Amino acid sequence: MSSMNIPQSSFPRVIIIGGGFGGIALAKKLAKKDVQVVLLDKHNYHNFQPLLYQVSTGGLEPDSIAYPIRKVLQGYPNFYFRLAEVLEVDTSMRRLQTNIGEIQYDYLVVATGSRTNFFGNKNIAEKGMAMKTIPQSLNLRSLILENFEQALLTDDLHERDALMNFVIVGGGPTGVELAGALAEIKKGILPKDYPDLDTRRAQINLVQGGSRILPAMSAVASTKAERFLERLGVNVWKGIRVTDYDGKLVSTNTDTSFEACTLVWAAGVQAVCLDGLDSKDFLCRGNRLRVNEFHQVDGFEEIFAIGDVAQMESEPYPHGHPMMAQPAIQQGQNLGENLVRMIEGKDLKPFIYRDKGSMATVGRNKAVVDLPRFKFQGVFAWFVWMFVHLYFLIGFRNRVVVFINWVYNYIRFDREARLIIRPFKKQYQVNGKDKVTI
Amino acid sequence: MSSMNIPQSSFPRVIIIGGGFGGIALAKKLAKKDVQVVLLDKHNYHNFQPLLYQVSTGGLEPDSIAYPIRKVLQGYPNFYFRLAEVLEVDTSMRRLQTNIGEIQYDYLVVATGSRTNFFGNKNIAEKGMAMKTIPQSLNLRSLILENFEQALLTDDLHERDALMNFVIVGGGPTGVELAGALAEIKKGILPKDYPDLDTRRAQINLVQGGSRILPAMSAVASTKAERFLERLGVNVWKGIRVTDYDGKLVSTNTDTSFEACTLVWAAGVQAVCLDGLDSKDFLCRGNRLRVNEFHQVDGFEEIFAIGDVAQMESEPYPHGHPMMAQPAIQQGQNLGENLVRMIEGKDLKPFIYRDKGSMATVGRNKAVVDLPRFKFQGVFAWFVWMFVHLYFLIGFRNRVVVFINWVYNYIRFDREARLIIRPFKKQYQVNGKDKVTI
Repeated sequence: MSSMNIPQSSFPRVIIIGGGFGGIALAKKLAKKDVQVVLLDKHNYHNFQPLLYQVSTGGLEPDSIAYPIRKVLQGYPNFYFRLAEVLEVDTSMRRLQTNIGEIQYDYLVVATGSRTNFFGNKNIAEKGMAMKTIPQSLNLRSLILENFEQALLTDDLHERDALMNFVIVGGGPTGVELAGALAEIKKGILPKDYPDLDTRRAQINLVQGGSRILPAMSAVASTKAERFLERLGVNVWKGIRVTDYDGKLVSTNTDTSFEACTLVWAAGVQAVCLDGLDSKDFLCRGNRLRVNEFHQVDGFEEIFAIGDVAQMESEPYPHGHPMMAQPAIQQGQNLGENLVRMIEGKDLKPFIYRDKGSMATVGRNKAVVDLPRFKFQGVFAWFVWMFVHLYFLIGFRNRVVVFINWVYNYIRFDREARLIIRPFKKQYQVNGKDKVTI
Repeated sequence: MSSMNIPQSSFPRVIIIGGGFGGIALAKKLAKKDVQVVLLDKHNYHNFQPLLYQVSTGGLEPDSIAYPIRKVLQGYPNFYFRLAEVLEVDTSMRRLQTNIGEIQYDYLVVATGSRTNFFGNKNIAEKGMAMKTIPQSLNLRSLILENFEQALLTDDLHERDALMNFVIVGGGPTGVELAGALAEIKKGILPKDYPDLDTRRAQINLVQGGSRILPAMSAVASTKAERFLERLGVNVWKGIRVTDYDGKLVSTNTDTSFEACTLVWAAGVQAVCLDGLDSKDFLCRGNRLRVNEFHQVDGFEEIFAIGDVAQMESEPYPHGHPMMAQPAIQQGQNLGENLVRMIEGKDLKPFIYRDKGSMATVGRNKAVVDLPRFKFQGVFAWFVWMFVHLYFLIGFRNRVVVFINWVYNYIRFDREARLIIRPFKKQYQVNGKDKVTI
């Protein structure tokens, strides 16, 4: 029946699409219960998105912020993982089409997360860099280093400046954290690595369409983060929208333009929806699926959505919860409990989001933290930021390796993973094999 | 004059091609002397080849066995690194053609190392895997994991077995260490990760053309290593040569054949020679360049070769020193001293190789060590192997991270970096960008 070699079971089958924060939290809740859990993901690992910017900037290795999905749920007899891409949902037959065959579900949970949204701007999508996945983050790492190597070679000062300049579009946590990390590299590493280049000329521009950076945080966090960034030498531009990019010239909706060979687009995400599950009845702005307080997609009893892809409209979140790890984790946990209750014929518990606060780091000893009861910034905030990120990282080995790297980077003002493992500009790969010419 | 933006200097210019063990050792010796040192490499990092097999088998992250070349030689004012591929040597004009322009040299050191030699067998070159570079090692890691994911999906027992089988061609240290690591994964990880697959059926075959494995080591090391491998469940085949491979069927020069979707070719290397420096006068078997006891390539005063690419014929090494880290390092150091002597008009010191011994590890608590004075095997040898490898690894952070990983892997019988970051079989990459469909 199923080409995926997943046995029929007397337990109902729950298929979870996506092994992000939400999918993993849900799978863990269900793994010991009387359900068959099938988790599908097109990667064999869970990745810790909040630290991707440190992979891009050479502070961490990708392997230490990724964790094999099979390992998370090792030893649970009713758990099945399959490396698969879902092609279509047939809601009437309760069946998925995937690149490895068909499979039936009793309950379906969409936890597909989100991807970069270029808002239809093809030039930016083609020439700009996204930073939502590990391969994308490694591509950005390669590009940054390749640009500096290339800057060394040109006598054209304009071109050299462009190769050393950065434009980061989007003043949310990703943009702020990346800008801060680049500023620290500019100060601590570039002058030593490139003594024959005037790296002081490198400009790091953070461009934010709205009136303040970190708009989802408190006003004091925004102000303080901006001050931190400026102290690090980042140019913060507010009320400006990037409109076009040709690989070098960054145009905006104002007179301001930038010459930069590296543009990172962190100005928007959209949920990843699935064919067959994209009716206008429940598809909201940014492709999110409208769900009720039990995570049920509008019109379905047995189809759920959690995390970035779910839009649960509630106060004070009329357009759904923020697209962050916390709502996804809490939703996964709540849905796990509810699915068991549903199967046992019990009443469901509506989801109540517990806002644990939000935070962003700008650089060493510089972070901003908004907790529900109080807000703080600076050194202590930075330690809290580190502790929280280590805590939520999956895997003991990952925590130790990340911690060692942070201690080392802190003491040495260094980031040693500045390696061009797979060149981005100049692909040595031919048909997946390495063309070795030296 | 030079498009590489390397200033003219009153010091003579030494160009080193290749940042491997030899090139780095030489550059370090010269960095404080009255010479201008230009190091060219097509990667921006030095990589520690002896541990590549641990990257392939998920035991280590690539970033911890690689080190930025710029960082090794930070702070030396006469040192220049350029990310470049050398296209041709013009020995009469003392000039190099590279992909980033031309450059003159006063002294040229060829330290290009070696690459996999498939001995002209195109099928094996195309369908088999090499493991000489970090990207190649990551490709192998991806392929192994992808094959197991695929094995889950098929009902054809033949095909499933082939997806789980390994053939490693070549019984040198690389082949032995990889076979041992795979055997440990088979025993400790596969049954937990793939409970619905009969992973006991996975076969690890080590195929050696000669009459014993580790032929460069002592007879007792060979015997003991073979016993270790067999205890781990590796099938060791001796006196058999692999002749062809179609991606599944491995043919040999005997009646024996194997069905395996993973074939790793570790049966030969050849030196990487350069156009314009490939005269029959000095080109030896395997593309090595014949050099005298001062590392001078036959017929040249100012062109040197060190490491794998150099063939210095001496007793007891009529075909040159072994292609390993130690000769390369010692040659780099000797040449560094000699170049200074040469410039100062002093007599040169002939190279004398100090054999510090050789070693190979098979698995936990299992290694073989041949020292010049005594030989030992087992637990103590394994600790010596680890200590020596940590010692020669470049970079404090790398040493700590590798050590942490080893301790963790030892205690937990685990290797957590089993991540398919860039799929090998199914490339998601389109034009260097990530096609995200889920």
